Amino acid sequence: MAELQTIVNEIHQALLPRLGEGKVADYIPQLARVDPKKFGIAVIDIHGRVYKAGDCDEPFSIQSVSKVFTLTLALGKHGETTWNRVGREPSGSAFNSIVQLEHENGKPRNPFINAGAIAISDLVMSGHTPREAIGEIVRFVQYLADDETIAIDPDVARSETATGYRNFALANFMKSFGKLDHAVDHVLGVYFHQCALAMSCTQLARAALFLANNGKNPLTGHTVVSSQRARRINALMLTCGHYDGSGDFAYHVGLPGKSGVGGGIMAVAPGRASVAVWSPGLNQVGNSLLGSVALEMLAARTGWSIFGTQH
Amino acid sequence: MAELQTIVNEIHQALLPRLGEGKVADYIPQLARVDPKKFGIAVIDIHGRVYKAGDCDEPFSIQSVSKVFTLTLALGKHGETTWNRVGREPSGSAFNSIVQLEHENGKPRNPFINAGAIAISDLVMSGHTPREAIGEIVRFVQYLADDETIAIDPDVARSETATGYRNFALANFMKSFGKLDHAVDHVLGVYFHQCALAMSCTQLARAALFLANNGKNPLTGHTVVSSQRARRINALMLTCGHYDGSGDFAYHVGLPGKSGVGGGIMAVAPGRASVAVWSPGLNQVGNSLLGSVALEMLAARTGWSIFGTQH
Amino acid sequence: MAELQTIVNEIHQALLPRLGEGKVADYIPQLARVDPKKFGIAVIDIHGRVYKAGDCDEPFSIQSVSKVFTLTLALGKHGETTWNRVGREPSGSAFNSIVQLEHENGKPRNPFINAGAIAISDLVMSGHTPREAIGEIVRFVQYLADDETIAIDPDVARSETATGYRNFALANFMKSFGKLDHAVDHVLGVYFHQCALAMSCTQLARAALFLANNGKNPLTGHTVVSSQRARRINALMLTCGHYDGSGDFAYHVGLPGKSGVGGGIMAVAPGRASVAVWSPGLNQVGNSLLGSVALEMLAARTGWSIFGTQH
Amino acid sequence: MAELQTIVNEIHQALLPRLGEGKVADYIPQLARVDPKKFGIAVIDIHGRVYKAGDCDEPFSIQSVSKVFTLTLALGKHGETTWNRVGREPSGSAFNSIVQLEHENGKPRNPFINAGAIAISDLVMSGHTPREAIGEIVRFVQYLADDETIAIDPDVARSETATGYRNFALANFMKSFGKLDHAVDHVLGVYFHQCALAMSCTQLARAALFLANNGKNPLTGHTVVSSQRARRINALMLTCGHYDGSGDFAYHVGLPGKSGVGGGIMAVAPGRASVAVWSPGLNQVGNSLLGSVALEMLAARTGWSIFGTQH
Repeated sequence: MAELQTIVNEIHQALLPRLGEGKVADYIPQLARVDPKKFGIAVIDIHGRVYKAGDCDEPFSIQSVSKVFTLTLALGKHGETTWNRVGREPSGSAFNSIVQLEHENGKPRNPFINAGAIAISDLVMSGHTPREAIGEIVRFVQYLADDETIAIDPDVARSETATGYRNFALANFMKSFGKLDHAVDHVLGVYFHQCALAMSCTQLARAALFLANNGKNPLTGHTVVSSQRARRINALMLTCGHYDGSGDFAYHVGLPGKSGVGGGIMAVAPGRASVAVWSPGLNQVGNSLLGSVALEMLAARTGWSIFGTQH
Repeated sequence: MAELQTIVNEIHQALLPRLGEGKVADYIPQLARVDPKKFGIAVIDIHGRVYKAGDCDEPFSIQSVSKVFTLTLALGKHGETTWNRVGREPSGSAFNSIVQLEHENGKPRNPFINAGAIAISDLVMSGHTPREAIGEIVRFVQYLADDETIAIDPDVARSETATGYRNFALANFMKSFGKLDHAVDHVLGVYFHQCALAMSCTQLARAALFLANNGKNPLTGHTVVSSQRARRINALMLTCGHYDGSGDFAYHVGLPGKSGVGGGIMAVAPGRASVAVWSPGLNQVGNSLLGSVALEMLAARTGWSIFGTQH
Repeated sequence: MAELQTIVNEIHQALLPRLGEGKVADYIPQLARVDPKKFGIAVIDIHGRVYKAGDCDEPFSIQSVSKVFTLTLALGKHGETTWNRVGREPSGSAFNSIVQLEHENGKPRNPFINAGAIAISDLVMSGHTPREAIGEIVRFVQYLADDETIAIDPDVARSETATGYRNFALANFMKSFGKLDHAVDHVLGVYFHQCALAMSCTQLARAALFLANNGKNPLTGHTVVSSQRARRINALMLTCGHYDGSGDFAYHVGLPGKSGVGGGIMAVAPGRASVAVWSPGLNQVGNSLLGSVALEMLAARTGWSIFGTQH
Repeated sequence: MAELQTIVNEIHQALLPRLGEGKVADYIPQLARVDPKKFGIAVIDIHGRVYKAGDCDEPFSIQSVSKVFTLTLALGKHGETTWNRVGREPSGSAFNSIVQLEHENGKPRNPFINAGAIAISDLVMSGHTPREAIGEIVRFVQYLADDETIAIDPDVARSETATGYRNFALANFMKSFGKLDHAVDHVLGVYFHQCALAMSCTQLARAALFLANNGKNPLTGHTVVSSQRARRINALMLTCGHYDGSGDFAYHVGLPGKSGVGGGIMAVAPGRASVAVWSPGLNQVGNSLLGSVALEMLAARTGWSIFGTQH
């Protein structure tokens, strides 16, 4: 394949004319006012080499990408008993998840839909006040990315709290089935704050690198999780990481990944590299439209798809 | 890793005490009377070397494993327009697929649930009588496995036809939405016959080898599909190949695969090998219980999971 | 109140300018080609006096109105055990009944949705060939209306059979749950023929008169059912007789009734009269638009609503 | 028929051996600790004559029976525009109402399921603080029953608020669809207080009497609603008043009625009488088990079913 920085540049150039495509999330003003033409990409290989282009160092609201980090934290605290609270199957539902919750007695299908991530927030809280749990999440992400400047955007957290009726509905619904240990307001406080983490593509790619390298961060030398757990988190991202577009993403890109409504996607090429892209416009199922295209181009040119053989 | 034949032998030995676990499908007598203690495994690497154990050369009813072959045929005939008829997303539904059909106007979520495979049978028929379409499917599978002895079990096809009310319901439902071109009875005739294919583990592994080798069968030298299409079929197997156990299979095994209610599972380790296992007892979501365990052991010992790096 | 014939005339006059409103059913040509401006009304009081207007003596396809007659037959044969096969609750579902069937293991919610009427046809068949069962239904309706000229329109029956995929789906679905005793094709043969009965408003009103008179037909002196059973059939019509518009019909009209997609509605004012109206244009939930308006006017002017007191 | 007091006495006597049947609601301690053998009945005819037996003057938690009163209030304030917020169709759903809410964009099916009653509380609040709205509801019920001693049980209201996660879920869900004007906590405050009204059978029967008498309370001479509106409220009670047991209640009893989880049922025989019964044990769908039996006996002996003719 071509030199990786060349590929990254070509992707950036190819997408320049399309910047602004898709629909920017507008349910809170902090997301609505983001420039729809922003675009960033960062690739870090397992030797620590960084390839990047565009607005790759500008922090954005990572939103649901954070669910990978809190799942990793919860698995560290609770191990496989985590799965008593949340399933591992795609939700597979264009008509969304509260229906599933009702049919399955308040147990979310996977940790990457909202209900599942709320259940994971509840697990992360165990033994903590909300404030302590939020602090632990931030420190964990700083540790993963080896960057103490990473922080939560308080305005985003506040806006989410003020308007997140659907998440209040989900959390109260789970609570009515006895599926949350802590008070609904506290759990959602943690959840809304984790979603309000602001990170750049470069920071996100660094934070994901352990998943590309069998659980060990090659930059810091820290073993974050076992190689088995890294594989399993990757499997969950592949099957459930893009809501009801997960199958499509696997079909076109072929890499484990997790998207956020802020327009970010974090992806992993096992044994090779981690990637983060950012473009605020979303496609119909809520994933970054150009971010998905960029990753499809990257996978095609590098041969990194996990479903084929590199030449 | 250890020598592959040693690993295969060890898996066979380790499972011997557990043979008979799970529930054999009994909705037709031909499946119900299969010896629940049968167990076979065959692995073929991309250089054509075969590693096998147990009842690996005894034909069994491949049932839904056949859906991979008919999808490949349909894609060959109709290309990406195939996806106008059937989606690419996991069905994600413990309470099954006719609900989805209703919500999505008769378009099945993916080609590996029954409704989706019926839609694919309809596509495969285009320009053919049912008899011709069945003949074409059989010849295609013979070609893939390079084995002209592969045949349909007519008793199984007949039993399925006589009792397949649920499939008649699905097909009539799709027809009511205008989603089938051919007569319901004809489409189901083709569908029931493809499911009645009888193959051994060795034959199945040979037939799947092109998917492990970027679309080209290394034994015959035939290019069956492009490398892109091979990757995409693998992606579909990973996200949708085990009904509502697809996420779990990805989590524990980490290989693209397709199961059948006859107890067979066909799996692919891209760039490495194809695998087929057979054990009639099923788990709660309808996949071979010990077959899944065997594949988890194989993936663990070989490091073939697509979600990690081989050492 | 005014003289009843005057009221009937006034309703007819008031609706003349609106004839043609609504959407005529077009899923079979025999219904599609009906003149949308047809309008008939017939009222028969329990003393046998007839009040009518418009096309009240022209036969039309009664379709689902027939479900009241087959339910009456089935209750006569099987008594309260009928309710082992079909429920008594409104389906309450804008997104229709196959979802309910799946959630409730193939038991239809009530005898007036299609699935329920198919189950009732199955019950009516017991001990009969399809031809005999159809004959019995026709003779029963002739007996109720005291009119041997009532017959099935064979073209309608044939068209329904050729295009009724949704009903084939429902019947096969129930069969897959073991909820039908007879062959799917036979049961549907009976079902499609009962729906193809052609009757005029006058004939329908005569056939319904026993329900207005505690089970006894005052014209013939025949006791068709007990007074308790008559009340119960009326209750079922009130709660379930207009699909997902049953609540609305009760709210606006306040009389037990049953609609058919051919534009007919049969209604009952207990202790007072039976009524039949016909206007082919349907409203959004599939009930005769002007037929509903006519009945609302009739109930308002006569004070016959069962939910208030006549002055 | 026999003298009405004799009938009431006979019903009471007949049920004495069965007192305690059914399952008392236990989701809050105030309901759980009620003596399961309590039984009261009160009938008031439209001439104001009272017939009663058992614990007919002991107040109990009327719970959902209150939904009839708040609907009446909302219709008084908003007229037919009330139906922009809530439908008039049975929910028809054993698997409950949040599914419906999702499919129907947050609009509840009718005012008697919880979601619908919460929407009605929101309407009743217009222009009021929660405290004022609660005061207005209490005064309205006192006015209907002509009894200023009727009050809310504050312990019940408090317990409902502390544990009503399901209702919080419903309300937040509707709020996420923009279907509530006021703050979720305020709307639920009103809702939980109206459910906590404590009334005796005699008080309930008095409060319902206007519905039996074309909208006019014959005891006070007050015209509460028009006769048309009284009929319509009765129609809603008939089709939707007993959750997923409404069809069954219509079938067996044949009177408009509304049940509450506290074991009360309020029913109306138009032109004749109002009735209230109380027995805490509930049947499987959440309606008073013996209360339903008592009303079935009453309807059978009086011939008051709205679906037949009185002899």
